[in-house]
Amino acid sequence: PPGKKVLIVYAHQEPKSLNGSLKRVAVEELSKQGCSVTVSDLYAMQFEPRATRNDIVGCLHNSEEFNYGVETWEAYKRGSLSSDVVEEQKKVQEADLLIFQFPLYWFSMPAIMKGWMDRVLVQGFAHEFPNCYDSGLLKNKLALFSFTTGGTKEMYTKGSISGDIRYLLWPMQHGIMHFCGVKVLAPHICFAPEYVSEEKRKEMLIAWAERLKTLWKEKPINCSSEWYFK
Amino acid sequence: PPGKKVLIVYAHQEPKSLNGSLKRVAVEELSKQGCSVTVSDLYAMQFEPRATRNDIVGCLHNSEEFNYGVETWEAYKRGSLSSDVVEEQKKVQEADLLIFQFPLYWFSMPAIMKGWMDRVLVQGFAHEFPNCYDSGLLKNKLALFSFTTGGTKEMYTKGSISGDIRYLLWPMQHGIMHFCGVKVLAPHICFAPEYVSEEKRKEMLIAWAERLKTLWKEKPINCSSEWYFK
Repeated sequence: PPGKKVLIVYAHQEPKSLNGSLKRVAVEELSKQGCSVTVSDLYAMQFEPRATRNDIVGCLHNSEEFNYGVETWEAYKRGSLSSDVVEEQKKVQEADLLIFQFPLYWFSMPAIMKGWMDRVLVQGFAHEFPNCYDSGLLKNKLALFSFTTGGTKEMYTKGSISGDIRYLLWPMQHGIMHFCGVKVLAPHICFAPEYVSEEKRKEMLIAWAERLKTLWKEKPINCSSEWYFK
Repeated sequence: PPGKKVLIVYAHQEPKSLNGSLKRVAVEELSKQGCSVTVSDLYAMQFEPRATRNDIVGCLHNSEEFNYGVETWEAYKRGSLSSDVVEEQKKVQEADLLIFQFPLYWFSMPAIMKGWMDRVLVQGFAHEFPNCYDSGLLKNKLALFSFTTGGTKEMYTKGSISGDIRYLLWPMQHGIMHFCGVKVLAPHICFAPEYVSEEKRKEMLIAWAERLKTLWKEKPINCSSEWYFK
């Protein structure tokens, strides 16, 4: 609805890919609804995935023994995180909804997107004990994982060798988003687009646009172990 | 035992960290046994985690629409992957055992190590349908995930909010290593080293050295969904 803010964190190298089209469809449909949409196009930004000392501007809290978690927490409090991290945190802070759009790499997100999680969701900003899970600092926000797979839907079912697709969502949806207090909408999965017809891929884009039309009426999943492993 | 080759893929920024010490203990103990040990120190190498067109030297198979999986598969067959990837593949090829040493970041490995998985375990080299899982191309190798956590052991048990630690091992051990045919040894986990005494941390190092003494007699886990979610 008008006024809602959406951040799409997008990780694909090729604009012509299905991931690229899914991203464009989301920008178009959500803009049409009156939402304000921002895209972090990680490859185009050459986003840095490595968690290093460079993420802290100026002196370290403890220069004798570098501890990334402690240093970034301290730097957040002092306002001395590197500018690319601060930029992403601003986008997150303003957003009502985070959409992660990516091809599944090795049962997870591509490293460039994992690096976004590692570097942006700093302690103090996204969580700060005991403010984690339901009381995480990003509560009142929503997240949605939208991704493509190499394997078919049948390959990702309970009892088959690759297991239920939900098993691999646990670290991403629960371990990251829920930990920060973010409520999780049902994932949007396009299975094996490389092995279906152009016609079917078009249907996938239409289905995504359709879902987005009523997205704001959706209830979050019950993000506890039962949802994943029941 | 003498003659065995071990590759340690190590991801920590600080040599003085517990991860740094665990890595050194492994190098020392395994060398003492007569193993030949190689270390890929990812931060020191400034290892590139991003999967991009730069991973292919020269012309692309399809320059109209970039598909990372297809391009790296083709480049592998032609021998035109970038030299840093080839270097890591050589180390993997020679190794009998892969040890991954890292601090757990967001229920998973740090992005720099995820990038190593994304870029090194190329189709054609590590798997090639139908050669995946038990017939993956890296069969006859072993892998072991050795990591530290922020949370305590109690926080990572079934029924507690963070769930059984095994839930988060599924993508790494099964989705990556088992998919490539690698047999997986039980993980080695140091829980919450930042919250225990120096004495306890020393005990953790001793326990790791002790385990390594009889490592070659260990049987791999039964890496199927039962092990993770039973």
